[in-house]
Amino acid sequence: MQSTMQNFPLTVAAILRYASTVHGDRTVTTATGEGCYRHATYREVGQQAARLANALRRLGIEGDDRVATFMWNNQEHLEAYVAVPSMGAVLHTLNIRLFPEQIEFVAYEAEDRVVIADLSLASILAPVLPKMETVHTVIAVGEGDLAAFEASGKKVVRYHEVTAAESDEFDWPEIDENSAAAMCYTSGTTGHPKGVVYGHRSSYLHSMAVCSGNGLGLGFSDKALPIVPMFHANAWGLPYAALMAGADLVLPDRFMDPTTMVNLIETQRPTVAGAVPTIWNDVMNYLDRNPGHDISSLRLVSCGGSAVPVSLMKAFEEKFDVQIRQLWGMTETSPIATLAWPPPGLPVEKQWEIRGTQGRPMCGVEARIVDDEGAVLPNDGEAVGELEVRGPWITGSYYRNTDDSKFQSGWLRTGDVGRIDAQGYITLTDRAKDVIKSGGEWISSVDLENHLIAHPAVREAAVVGVPDERWQERPLAAVVLHDGAEASPEELRTFLSDKVVRWWLPERWTFVDEIPRTSVGKYDKKTIRARHADDAYDVTYVT
Amino acid sequence: MQSTMQNFPLTVAAILRYASTVHGDRTVTTATGEGCYRHATYREVGQQAARLANALRRLGIEGDDRVATFMWNNQEHLEAYVAVPSMGAVLHTLNIRLFPEQIEFVAYEAEDRVVIADLSLASILAPVLPKMETVHTVIAVGEGDLAAFEASGKKVVRYHEVTAAESDEFDWPEIDENSAAAMCYTSGTTGHPKGVVYGHRSSYLHSMAVCSGNGLGLGFSDKALPIVPMFHANAWGLPYAALMAGADLVLPDRFMDPTTMVNLIETQRPTVAGAVPTIWNDVMNYLDRNPGHDISSLRLVSCGGSAVPVSLMKAFEEKFDVQIRQLWGMTETSPIATLAWPPPGLPVEKQWEIRGTQGRPMCGVEARIVDDEGAVLPNDGEAVGELEVRGPWITGSYYRNTDDSKFQSGWLRTGDVGRIDAQGYITLTDRAKDVIKSGGEWISSVDLENHLIAHPAVREAAVVGVPDERWQERPLAAVVLHDGAEASPEELRTFLSDKVVRWWLPERWTFVDEIPRTSVGKYDKKTIRARHADDAYDVTYVT
Repeated sequence: MQSTMQNFPLTVAAILRYASTVHGDRTVTTATGEGCYRHATYREVGQQAARLANALRRLGIEGDDRVATFMWNNQEHLEAYVAVPSMGAVLHTLNIRLFPEQIEFVAYEAEDRVVIADLSLASILAPVLPKMETVHTVIAVGEGDLAAFEASGKKVVRYHEVTAAESDEFDWPEIDENSAAAMCYTSGTTGHPKGVVYGHRSSYLHSMAVCSGNGLGLGFSDKALPIVPMFHANAWGLPYAALMAGADLVLPDRFMDPTTMVNLIETQRPTVAGAVPTIWNDVMNYLDRNPGHDISSLRLVSCGGSAVPVSLMKAFEEKFDVQIRQLWGMTETSPIATLAWPPPGLPVEKQWEIRGTQGRPMCGVEARIVDDEGAVLPNDGEAVGELEVRGPWITGSYYRNTDDSKFQSGWLRTGDVGRIDAQGYITLTDRAKDVIKSGGEWISSVDLENHLIAHPAVREAAVVGVPDERWQERPLAAVVLHDGAEASPEELRTFLSDKVVRWWLPERWTFVDEIPRTSVGKYDKKTIRARHADDAYDVTYVT
Repeated sequence: MQSTMQNFPLTVAAILRYASTVHGDRTVTTATGEGCYRHATYREVGQQAARLANALRRLGIEGDDRVATFMWNNQEHLEAYVAVPSMGAVLHTLNIRLFPEQIEFVAYEAEDRVVIADLSLASILAPVLPKMETVHTVIAVGEGDLAAFEASGKKVVRYHEVTAAESDEFDWPEIDENSAAAMCYTSGTTGHPKGVVYGHRSSYLHSMAVCSGNGLGLGFSDKALPIVPMFHANAWGLPYAALMAGADLVLPDRFMDPTTMVNLIETQRPTVAGAVPTIWNDVMNYLDRNPGHDISSLRLVSCGGSAVPVSLMKAFEEKFDVQIRQLWGMTETSPIATLAWPPPGLPVEKQWEIRGTQGRPMCGVEARIVDDEGAVLPNDGEAVGELEVRGPWITGSYYRNTDDSKFQSGWLRTGDVGRIDAQGYITLTDRAKDVIKSGGEWISSVDLENHLIAHPAVREAAVVGVPDERWQERPLAAVVLHDGAEASPEELRTFLSDKVVRWWLPERWTFVDEIPRTSVGKYDKKTIRARHADDAYDVTYVT
């Protein structure tokens, strides 16, 4: 027996239709530098989206053609976010931080036809543009010379000219909710980046979850500030969620230094913001050095991308009464899967303990941990295994089925290792590929790094597993000291000795000038292991 | 191009799975009378649901068989809410306030096989039970004698006995999200009640919307109190939404007098509650007469079912700092479609004006008004027409396609008449069938009634359109005076004269002992018009 309910598709077009009518007078504000801002209503964004869709049709975009963006967080990027999926095409947000050869690869694999690009990013895009074979047109956003783009031989037009020439109405097609809305590639820490294709349905449901009380509780009394980039993983879904909620949006464009960020918060008064820990750390340092600023408009700050230090959360709460809510997700999970908010009625110390975890799933996401053979382990807060997730906004494959090994069980293997407690809170201790297996037991490289970084002489520390004849693997600690600081391996080992169990203590130490990093700034442990294997490091052995 | 996202069905089973694991230690509390309460965790509710599903299988429930409930708001009803749809069967909540012949009709049309019934409702159900042809078994909940049910000749078992005998695990089947989860009949003000079949998908999406910031913002720090009955329109979706949010539930069972309600709020400390205006009016009267009570745990009270007087909302806010949020919906809309919350930054008087409207749609629901020919009218706050709505939790037909006239345009014709302003706020002025069309213009019976009720001598007032030779229709006011109070038609007409335009003023007045009402307590205007036509009223004519 079927329900009698309407067959009403969940689409980006429906979000746009709602935001540009019921919430047509809400605004998107874009920073233009030096404390200046420009504004547009959602009604105007809807009209601009129609103009963009008309312009793209005129440029030959049909069916599910891919339209790429190479942009900061700004109004035009928002217009592309709604126009491209709503016209039935597929938005491909190019990650400006990928290596040039990776950008070339992903644009080719996705078969991008048109790239909408900020002229302020011309110096990054122009060198790779001639190699982007499938791209025939560049739509340049903002002021500046087109020469760098034109040197590629592609057709180059100006965004504001091609949209101004078009009608502000578009005959938006009916769209199957399971069809592709947008694409994003993983950051490709190992091997080629892999494509994830978000659907209209998955983006709609993810937005609803972000708006829920256990998400960020977004409503039309909010003003959302996504600092996290729109060029990767949907800016944590904040743009679509804000449109759905009728919340104002504030977009920083390329102006993300702490001075500008604090000015933006102080003058535009966002209520909810999202950024990685580094940004909030910089903001806190700035506020410490420049007292008297007011960031009290923020009721909630979401933070993720890497583990959020409890000390940072405490500083925001104690000094500014601003709550930081840690979240976890990945490109493959749309991206928000879990949030670290404690249940009511807990003692303060227990609350902080929970806020230091990666959180627990929003309804819609299911999580479990499995052992090497895929057997499900208990949620007892002790068993450690690889995290698997499933749900309507979790990917079930990669574009063109690259790397099917991640989807054998009907769940996504996240490549993260950790434990889950009885209330569903997840604590991640490592990336699966970075786990150190010593004498049959796991050593957490992340735990060791977190402890080492707390030593006053240590600026950075990466711990990797290296081959060991007796124990199979043992940890190697690669340490960067602060300028002028000194610390011996013996001293650091002693420093760790009351913080972790004895058999975790590294015997192998190397002091380096910098830790190799991936394109998105994560420790590149593969390279560290390779350099160790090549004897490129000067290793001290202490026990 | 399809998305790569998982094909993960949105089902009641998924809500149950989530609530009983991640939020397994949250509780449902049921009132047992005289200030006593019993508690169960969501983990236990999940186990009980499995036992109930096993028991229903043993009683012959297969496929999409209908399982009816005839129950108050209590833990066992919650168990049926999750168990029946999750096993693939269809929950049919029988409205205990329907007339006996309507109950017989809807149970027959829905082909109910089993009825789960509170023994406290035996006196209402027992007389109609023998006529419920398709029903073979009654599962009796609570203490008391089974004789009244057994007299029907049906098989009668006790809920706690048949569930106790079963395993607390059940092999929940895979379910298509578009299949039926539950049924509910309209209250049948005109003609037979009509069946609405909720789907798994529609109930899931409705729950997400209720949990959103623009809905009730439910999260796991909340404790929800649905006073509005679970036997009609899903108790506004609060039970499923609370499970999805991991919010505690407090259920009043049959104890809904103001004394018990205030005790319940004071001792169980719910944060969010839902009930019709009458209940809150009674609670306010009780609190006025019995000062010193504490209802401060309530952060939000949702209120609907009939228009919510602004004076009532103001009283709750000024005396107790409790916010009442008006909502609008109907059986056909799952039921919440709109909520009356003002955008930020408005002056206080404008806020109250908006809170007096029926509100604006949550994302997912679209609303418009149309004229008699179905042409769409502008959202200018002035044009008046019939409200139409559409969306994923709006019904697209009635069960067995009774009354297809409501779905001609792909939208649901609500039968409500009103206007929509530029920000989407809807003000309903009448039921379409009760609209008074005088000289080609509409007179709002609801406006006239609201003004009349403000006269100190008037206890109740209903205004209906009656035939008029010159103007086609004119209003007739049927008035009930307070005991001992006096007021002439001339005085009431003068009282109205500075409140509505002159040509709205009724010439026809009748004073009656009571206003006829429907089974669910609404004014029965059809009967009033019929009595007027039969000259059953003593009508005074004044101009």
